Formats: sequence, structure tokens, C-alpha cells
Amino acid sequence: MAKEGKLVEAITSMEEDFAQWYTDVVRKADLIDYTSVKGCMVLKPAGYAIWELIQKQLDERFKETGVENVYLPMFIPESLLQKEKDHVEGFAPEVAWVTHGGINELEERLCVRPTSETLFCDFYKNDIQSYRDLPKLYNQWCSVVRWEKETRPFLRSREFLWQEGHTAHATAEEAQERTEQMLHLYADFCEEVLAMPVIRGRKTDKEKFAGAKATYTIEALMHDGKALQSGTSHNFGDGFAKAFGIQYQDKDNSLKYVHQTSWGMTTRLIGAIIMVHGDESGLVLPPMIAPVQVMITPIMQKKEGVLEKAAEIKEALKEFRVRVDASDKSPGFKFAEQEMRGIPLRIEIGPKDIEAGQAVLVRRDTREKYQVAIDEIVTMVAKLLPEIQKDMYDRALAHREEHTHTALDYDEFQNIITNRQGFVKAMWCGDTACEEAIKEETGATTRCMPFEQEQIGNVCVRCGKPAKAMVYFGKAY
Amino acid sequence: MAKEGKLVEAITSMEEDFAQWYTDVVRKADLIDYTSVKGCMVLKPAGYAIWELIQKQLDERFKETGVENVYLPMFIPESLLQKEKDHVEGFAPEVAWVTHGGINELEERLCVRPTSETLFCDFYKNDIQSYRDLPKLYNQWCSVVRWEKETRPFLRSREFLWQEGHTAHATAEEAQERTEQMLHLYADFCEEVLAMPVIRGRKTDKEKFAGAKATYTIEALMHDGKALQSGTSHNFGDGFAKAFGIQYQDKDNSLKYVHQTSWGMTTRLIGAIIMVHGDESGLVLPPMIAPVQVMITPIMQKKEGVLEKAAEIKEALKEFRVRVDASDKSPGFKFAEQEMRGIPLRIEIGPKDIEAGQAVLVRRDTREKYQVAIDEIVTMVAKLLPEIQKDMYDRALAHREEHTHTALDYDEFQNIITNRQGFVKAMWCGDTACEEAIKEETGATTRCMPFEQEQIGNVCVRCGKPAKAMVYFGKAY
Repeated sequence: MAKEGKLVEAITSMEEDFAQWYTDVVRKADLIDYTSVKGCMVLKPAGYAIWELIQKQLDERFKETGVENVYLPMFIPESLLQKEKDHVEGFAPEVAWVTHGGINELEERLCVRPTSETLFCDFYKNDIQSYRDLPKLYNQWCSVVRWEKETRPFLRSREFLWQEGHTAHATAEEAQERTEQMLHLYADFCEEVLAMPVIRGRKTDKEKFAGAKATYTIEALMHDGKALQSGTSHNFGDGFAKAFGIQYQDKDNSLKYVHQTSWGMTTRLIGAIIMVHGDESGLVLPPMIAPVQVMITPIMQKKEGVLEKAAEIKEALKEFRVRVDASDKSPGFKFAEQEMRGIPLRIEIGPKDIEAGQAVLVRRDTREKYQVAIDEIVTMVAKLLPEIQKDMYDRALAHREEHTHTALDYDEFQNIITNRQGFVKAMWCGDTACEEAIKEETGATTRCMPFEQEQIGNVCVRCGKPAKAMVYFGKAY
Repeated sequence: MAKEGKLVEAITSMEEDFAQWYTDVVRKADLIDYTSVKGCMVLKPAGYAIWELIQKQLDERFKETGVENVYLPMFIPESLLQKEKDHVEGFAPEVAWVTHGGINELEERLCVRPTSETLFCDFYKNDIQSYRDLPKLYNQWCSVVRWEKETRPFLRSREFLWQEGHTAHATAEEAQERTEQMLHLYADFCEEVLAMPVIRGRKTDKEKFAGAKATYTIEALMHDGKALQSGTSHNFGDGFAKAFGIQYQDKDNSLKYVHQTSWGMTTRLIGAIIMVHGDESGLVLPPMIAPVQVMITPIMQKKEGVLEKAAEIKEALKEFRVRVDASDKSPGFKFAEQEMRGIPLRIEIGPKDIEAGQAVLVRRDTREKYQVAIDEIVTMVAKLLPEIQKDMYDRALAHREEHTHTALDYDEFQNIITNRQGFVKAMWCGDTACEEAIKEETGATTRCMPFEQEQIGNVCVRCGKPAKAMVYFGKAY
């Protein structure tokens, strides 16, 4: 069987070549396929189903905070993109341009949205008239395009799926509050649903979003010690409102500019899940976003009663995402396949088990095995899934803590970046020149100035001038 | 209050100018906004929420038949689009072309997908190897672009949201079965969820999809007597498989071409809902896709206890989509606004009602009022919503039956098309020349050859030659 042959071939060891391990997992767990357009991929059922679960749970959290979904066009006229100076400088070099509709050349070029601030501004300009129209708390689920040179599945692709929230508020305070609220919502989502601990903080001016007054970020640490920016939330102040003329009439009849925010998370999160939780056998999915949480695997399935018992167990577990693998592959092959795909729990049930009135449960994350009486399976699954979720989070947190270092001087800083992996916490003077020099000299970038500041020292780790903030540094994806 | 002024302004009467009525409803029910790109619209929260409900319920029905969701790129290389001859001829004149990525001209132009048959074929070519890989039952939710000259919100726009299912099968029989299965799924969905009766049938060769062997359609009749194609399902046979080389190894080791289908429904359905159910006061939404099913409207809401009682009723109704309108607008304005937006049920609750231990329920579709004891409200809402849903379907069906005519000869046919509205059932010889002549002479097109054939006569209504099929004719959107 050709297909079986392909799968049992081992994947590259993550300790040997992490990048190749990642590519192997992405392909062999059947998450994506490449296409004839460089940097554009097919999200296959196993990959897209993870995104659907992320989408559903994130969307519910948005709606609880009053956010409503909308859909704006995918095209931005060139003149509209150019209205906010910093924004166009940040995005124009990497957009895809539509120049023709059918055989006719367009009067004005349209870019395929790389992000939709300009479209939302153009819309809000008419939609917002009075203080009664505020706040506007809109979000859209869509795909965006950025013409990247280097591409990697999930992490950096020319087209990717995301959500982008865009809000407009009467006051600067409200906008700041919403910016931070959404960042914490993202962080809680990552920690509670993806079992992925994150550092919450603010980007330096150098690293902030094109056109933003302030950018906040959540940063996660991957298994190889590199950081991954996993979600961002921006406060635009009234900069876009002034560029686009978005004013409202306040209670006292005066005209005021609105204050805006935007915030986004992408299919990049799937890359993060792979690189935080994966192991030498492939993907390990946190139960809360596993499209299949429990796979029932019949043993000697042609024997009388085996498939029937498997179906019975499936029915009993119907409140979970459960399937029976009744294909004609061997049990060993099925186990390897399920491990590659990261299915959190496996139930083995064969003639001997049935005779003994029990089944075998196996955890994907720890490989622990449990002999469970058949009528205890539901209770056990209900107990194990949240346990797996929690243990995965705890392990990821322990890994991050082991790989978070403190540097008091630049020798120590360079030594850690060169010889160890992970985050380095160090003091910084706030000067972009220092930040750029550190990047040049070590390859590490400022990941964020965390909300939780620690007093590691008083002076900048590189220049020795008085320090303004503690910063997380790291090499990043 | 400027906003209030805008809304109470009456909309155009549907009997006077149906097209203008439609535009008025679309805008005043706050479903969409126009944008600076012609033919591209903003789906506002009230419009997008309808689409979300359609999406959720349709997606569940798909998944019950084994369909899995995927996501394919939005770009199609020109060479890929050209692989199937009929297909490229049908779509090339109306696609948007991307020619530049950033400042660099692309080596090959990419079109923004108008539909994704070619992309699915390119993907299936590698993804399908063996009979074990079949069937493939994939679907995607996305937006597509067709550079239309004339555009109207929902009915014909340059970018629109849809789902496109693409399946691959081992045999011609299976492909035909799936084509019809999805058409019936669409029809049942329209009838059960949108309360919109449809005619199920097959398109003539002239009207079929570019590249298809056979196209099936559901056709609905709008309030003004025009037809709207509301969903289509195509059987491609092995035409695309041969053009793209999609073969599988069968059990006997022979190589065979797959047989393919595709099927789609779009945001056009929202236009259909408006034009089937709307009335002189605006939108009328079937309860099953109403984002708000029940709007509780407090009367004299500043009086003690009124808002509290409204909140209590809301809490009791939480299994429904229910809201309280506690804004500072007048009750009369709120009623008009809720009617414009098509909210199925309104509950009025004021100090006198509270004293009497009751509330007033008002149906949007019939304006019927009910005095209901407060502790009977939940029971009454649970009874009324399905009743409204059913009555709306029955009324739409009665309207279609009143506007469905039979023509035995061409004089009668022309007379009906000119002087009456609706569908005309007539016999047809099967000749495209006759079909084109009818269109030229009367403006009516063949909508479909219904599955339920009737023997109206033996000869073609126009040429008098022996008839091959009974056809539904009509003017269409």
C-alpha cells in the first residue's frame, strides 16, 4: 500500500533540524498542500477544521464584548491606500495590484487588501455622524494578501486567513481601553484554548504597526526557543480619523474626531500550535481545538461484535468530537497516523477487551495507557480531556520558563543569544539606535515591553545610559 | 434628530417601482453600504448576521452528508484557468487580473478566482491516487470576483460571498447522484429555512455552467413576478479530469478518470429573501434566519420597573435570539425601525401591561396583536415563531402558484409574458435556436426543465415541432 509506505517513513527529528521537522509535520499530518502559486497553500480538511474551531471560539469571545461581524470588499483603490502616510509606506511595497477587469484596463489600480484600516475608515466616514453612533465595534473574518519574498506554511504566506477587528470610539481613553481589552482577550484565548502561554506587552516604536500610535502584542516561545508574535492590537489615536475626516457631533454639538483601534489574529496560530506542542511523532493538539478529540480504534475489527461495540462507544461519547477508524489499515498504522495528526485520545477496543468488559485509553501527549471499564469510558474521557489540556499548558509554560533568561550586561546578553535559546529579559534605554545595534550584532529583536515590568537593573544593557523599560528580546519567526 | 428623520421618510412603494423599493429596503434596513469600488459593497452587521445564519445552517446540512471544508487560494494562474476550453471562454472576459506583486511585474498574470474548479482540479491531481481516496467531498466558504458591468446589491456584485462545493467520484453514477443530492439539499434549505418555495430542475445546454455536462438549478419567484436562480449544482462528467489529468488507480489496478461535480449558493439569497417576503414597510425575515427574532420594546421605559421587567422577559426568552431596545428613541420610531428591519416578533411592555400582568406581542408578517400573560410569553413565542415561518412559506407558495401560467401556443405565451407576471410553463423542442428566438422576441429565458414534468401538449410552443420537454420560462434577475 503506497499510502501506508509514505506515512510510516519517519519524520525528521526536531532536535536535528527543527525547520525540516516543521515542514514534515505540516505535510504528514495532512494540514496543507502546496499550490502552483508560490506562497499560497491549500488548507486541507485537517488544517481547516482547526481554523474553524479557533474561529468559533474566538468569535464567541468577541461577541461577548459587543463586537459585530461585517464584511468589507477585498479591493482598495490606490488613492485610498495612500491617505495615511505611514500606513501606505508600510504596506505599498508588498501588495498585489489588480490592473484589469476582464479585457479593460482599470482607471485606477486596486490593491488586494493587505489589511483593511483604509476601507473601514472610508466606511466609518459616512457611517458615523453622532455620538449616538459610537462606539463602533466591528470585526471581519477574511483572507488578506501580502507579497512576501520568503514564505513558510502558516508562518508567512502570501495569502492567509485572519480576523481583523476595527473599532471607533468617542474618546482616547475608550480606544486605549479597547486596545488592551482585545490584547488580553487574545492572550486568554491562547492560554485557555490553545494551551499556549504568552507574554503580554507593548511593541517598541520601531516594531509597531504602520500608522499606529501604539501596538500591543502577545509573544509565545516555540519549542526551538524562537519567539512567535501571535496576535497584535493597535491604538491609532485620531491619526486615521484626521486623514480620512471621520468626525462625530458630540452632545454639546461640537465636531470631534473619533479614536480608533484594530486587532488581528491569523492562521499563523496553527503554526504556533505545531511548534509549541509537537513532538518527534508529529502534531499534538490541545483537546479544545482538536477536530477529532477521541479516535476509537477497533482491533481485529472483522471479529463479530467489535465494530458494533466501537459504534456503541462512539454513541456514548457523542458530546465529544469522536470518530471510529474502521478503515482497512492495520492497527499499528492507524496508531502512527493518529499520533502524527495529534489526536488527543485513542480508545482501543478488541475481542479480548470486550470479553473483559473494558477498553484501553491512550493519551497522545504522554502516551499513558489506562484500562477502563466500558461503562466508565465517558467519565474517563470527560476527566482526561481537560487534564490533557491543562498538562499541555503547564509543560509549555515550564519550557518557556526554562528558556527565559536575564542579562545584566551586554557580554551576558550576547552569550545567551549565541549559546542558549529563548527569551532574554534586559533593560533598554528606549533609543531606536540601540535597538537596531542589538539586532545587527546579535540577531535578536525587541519582542515587547511587557506589562509586568521587572527592575533588573538601572541602565540599558547595551549603551549603559539610564534604562526606560525592561524588554523581552529574542530571535523570532 | 437627523437619523430618525431619515428613517421615518417612507420607502418607495413596491407596487409603484419595485427596483427602487428594493434599493430602499436594502439601505434602510441597514443591510449594506456602498463603497468607493463600484459593485463592491459593505455587508453591515444586520446584513452579515443573516449570512452567518445561512452559513451555519447550510454548513451543518453539508457536513451531515459527509462534506468537509477546505480553503484554496484566491489566485488562479492564467495558464491554469485556460486548461478547460469551455470554462475559460465562460469566465475569462469577467475576471480581475493581478499583474504586480509590490513593485515587481509578475511573470504570469493571476486572476482573482471567479469560481475554483481549476484550482480544485490542480489540487485533486495530486491528492487523488487510488480508489481509496474517493470520493472527495470538499467545500469552501469564500468570496469570488466577477467583473460585472451592471451591478445591484446582493443580486449582482463584483465581489460576493458564497460557498462552492467540489467533489470527485469513482463513477459517473455517483457524480450524478451527488449533483442531484446537493440540488435537493439546496431546495430543502430554501423551503425549510428561508420559507421560499423553489422549482427544481435542469438548465438547458444554452444556460448551463461553462464546462459542465449538466447544470441543475433551483428557481424562485420574486414578488414582482421575476425569477431568481437561487442555487446551482453541476455535473462535469470526466471533462475536467481529462483536461487536468486527474486519474485514480482502481481495485483492478487500471487507471481511471474521476467524475466531478460542483455546487454553489451565494449572498444573492439575501436578495431573494428581500424580494420574496418584503412588504411596503420593509424587510420581513423568516424567523429561522432572523438575527433578532424577538425585539422587546419597553414603553415609558423611564418608569420604575419597566426596564427590569423587559430584562426579565429577555432572560426568560434566552433560547431565542432576543434583544431589548432600550435606546432613547420613541416607541413609534422603534416600531417603524423594527418593521423596516423585518424582526419577526415584537413584545411591547409598559407600566399598564405590567400592572395587568401581561404584554403585547405583534407579528411582523401579519401585524396580528396578541395580549399575553407574562408567564405565557415563552410558550407563545415558541408557538408563534414556527407559525410565522410556516405562514410565510405558504404565502410565498400561493403567490407563486397564482403567478404560474401555462401556454399552449405562442400567442398565449407572448400575451402572458407581456401582460402578466410570473412563470410560464410551456413545451419546447430542445433546439437552442428556438430558445434564443423566444428570448429575443419576449425577453423570457428558459429557467429550467423541471424534474416534475407535465404533459401540457406535444409540440414546441414556438416552432410546432415535436416537444422534448416542459420548460419553465420567465423574465429573470
